[in-house]
Amino acid sequence: MLGGMSGKHRMRPRKIAGERDLIAAIRKRAGQHADHLSRGILNLGIGDDCAVLRPRRGRDIVITTDLSLENVHFRRDWHSPQSAGHRCLARGLSDLAAMGARPEAAFLSLALPAELTGKWLAGFLEGFFALAEEHAVALAGGDMARSPLVVADIVLLGSTPQGRALLRSGAHAGDVLYVTGALGGSAAELDALAHRSGVFRSPGRAGHPHLFPQPRLAPGRKLLRLATAAIDVSDGLSTDLSHLCEESGLAAEVYRQDLPIDARATLEQALHGGEDYELLFTSSPETPVPAHLAGVAVHAIGRMKKKSKRPQVEMVDGSTRAPLAARGWEHFR
Amino acid sequence: MLGGMSGKHRMRPRKIAGERDLIAAIRKRAGQHADHLSRGILNLGIGDDCAVLRPRRGRDIVITTDLSLENVHFRRDWHSPQSAGHRCLARGLSDLAAMGARPEAAFLSLALPAELTGKWLAGFLEGFFALAEEHAVALAGGDMARSPLVVADIVLLGSTPQGRALLRSGAHAGDVLYVTGALGGSAAELDALAHRSGVFRSPGRAGHPHLFPQPRLAPGRKLLRLATAAIDVSDGLSTDLSHLCEESGLAAEVYRQDLPIDARATLEQALHGGEDYELLFTSSPETPVPAHLAGVAVHAIGRMKKKSKRPQVEMVDGSTRAPLAARGWEHFR
Repeated sequence: MLGGMSGKHRMRPRKIAGERDLIAAIRKRAGQHADHLSRGILNLGIGDDCAVLRPRRGRDIVITTDLSLENVHFRRDWHSPQSAGHRCLARGLSDLAAMGARPEAAFLSLALPAELTGKWLAGFLEGFFALAEEHAVALAGGDMARSPLVVADIVLLGSTPQGRALLRSGAHAGDVLYVTGALGGSAAELDALAHRSGVFRSPGRAGHPHLFPQPRLAPGRKLLRLATAAIDVSDGLSTDLSHLCEESGLAAEVYRQDLPIDARATLEQALHGGEDYELLFTSSPETPVPAHLAGVAVHAIGRMKKKSKRPQVEMVDGSTRAPLAARGWEHFR
Repeated sequence: MLGGMSGKHRMRPRKIAGERDLIAAIRKRAGQHADHLSRGILNLGIGDDCAVLRPRRGRDIVITTDLSLENVHFRRDWHSPQSAGHRCLARGLSDLAAMGARPEAAFLSLALPAELTGKWLAGFLEGFFALAEEHAVALAGGDMARSPLVVADIVLLGSTPQGRALLRSGAHAGDVLYVTGALGGSAAELDALAHRSGVFRSPGRAGHPHLFPQPRLAPGRKLLRLATAAIDVSDGLSTDLSHLCEESGLAAEVYRQDLPIDARATLEQALHGGEDYELLFTSSPETPVPAHLAGVAVHAIGRMKKKSKRPQVEMVDGSTRAPLAARGWEHFR
């Protein structure tokens, strides 16, 4: 084509060099991987203009998309390609978890410099497919292009029982506020990466809340029977709680002493750090919520209240009470 | 957050400066726009962790994703923001057209430099929503981030009657090969843009096959009753026909004198130019195919054959016969 402009590029194989070879390799990898999967609704995956899903009766489809950009969402000098691939998929899976959804299919749009199509891309796909296999998600399609910086856009489709998806808007005044796992670990590990400190040195993926966050899919599905509203903690507790309040038309208070803070993190990181990918949810005070959901600890950290003239979210620490402003990350600010 | 790293960013409004304002504006625009739509399956749009679709009984869901990158898929000095927004959506809609699908919902992941969030973004959305309204597609969600170059990833969901989606793999030996509209216009207009020639000067969107391509959704849906296989001409006739052949396990021949070539285009542009977003389809020789589908001209241009030792695709010109190699655009080549 003229002027370096390109047409569209569906994932499909051809026996010529370049993009086709890459896509063929990804398609082969996705195929091997799909062999492990059993009861998906994916009817047709990579290789046509679109993928085809056959929805199950009585279930809704939920969809989310998340961008991962080099130097914005990850840095190649801090994040291994395995971490970049894992994190790209984890972002989308965490959104499904917050809806109480079962993952059904993933689509990956990936643009990268030509010099990264070898070892770096292999590492990215290794991290991506390791997490995909853990959660039985099939890669059903995507797009590929050349670009001066790595751009990965992940699309996740999941399903929930009809009309039962967990929304941000379902909380009631008086509901108890809970969070899974611990907060601040991701920001603390990112800080350690930036300062080349050795705090987070466990081998493997476990114990790396920033490099290999674990989306809370199994706890999320248990929340379908327990929670009135849910959101994942991606932008930071203060920011994500403000979203929950706004969509539910409520205010909230958080109890300082009840916050589960990662042992390596500061209070600041736990409140505003973001990217913990834990679930923040509300439940009626009459609902018994277990201390663990699918093996993940759950802590009551506050309660939902009617809106008033007071700040939308407050933190209560002993006898003091202070506004908790949304201070998580925001682009273009 | 630390180090310029960001968390996830769902489309949702907040009353603080920056990303939230942009998303609020897009949400408002999408909402106004959704008011025009009638029978969508979109249950919940922008504002939660995921969008929710309620599939109709007896229909499959089809999905496609397409990247649009600045300086790869468009250039800001050649393409107006309206054109960039139109083309971004048109790429995805054309994939739905090639499946015979009805559009149901769109998701837009958009990353751009801060200095483009004013007038340029407004123009992009103007082009995007003008085409979305024409085809009654709701914007159901997406993601937004800051980036040194414009990155737009479009996700389109559509629906087809169950098991009836038009595939690339359904052609039979002996089927007639057809194409909608005319070929080469997009490459010819791109060439005119590159050389600042005045060949494509019509006011408005009509008559601009490159800047404002028209996805063939209405003809595509009529093909559900006529075609055995279909693909959209995005990478160029030679390349897209080779895909159709491969997925159907066939060979093909194309008749030079029957090719509908845009009056401003060369044969080379018609064969290899790409981005025409016409539909290339096959139909049994017994099936009567009208000369127009939903107002778009249809031409028989060749036929499908069993694979042999001859080249996969040949062009027949009078008494001569020559291989037609796939020479459309490919990344990383």
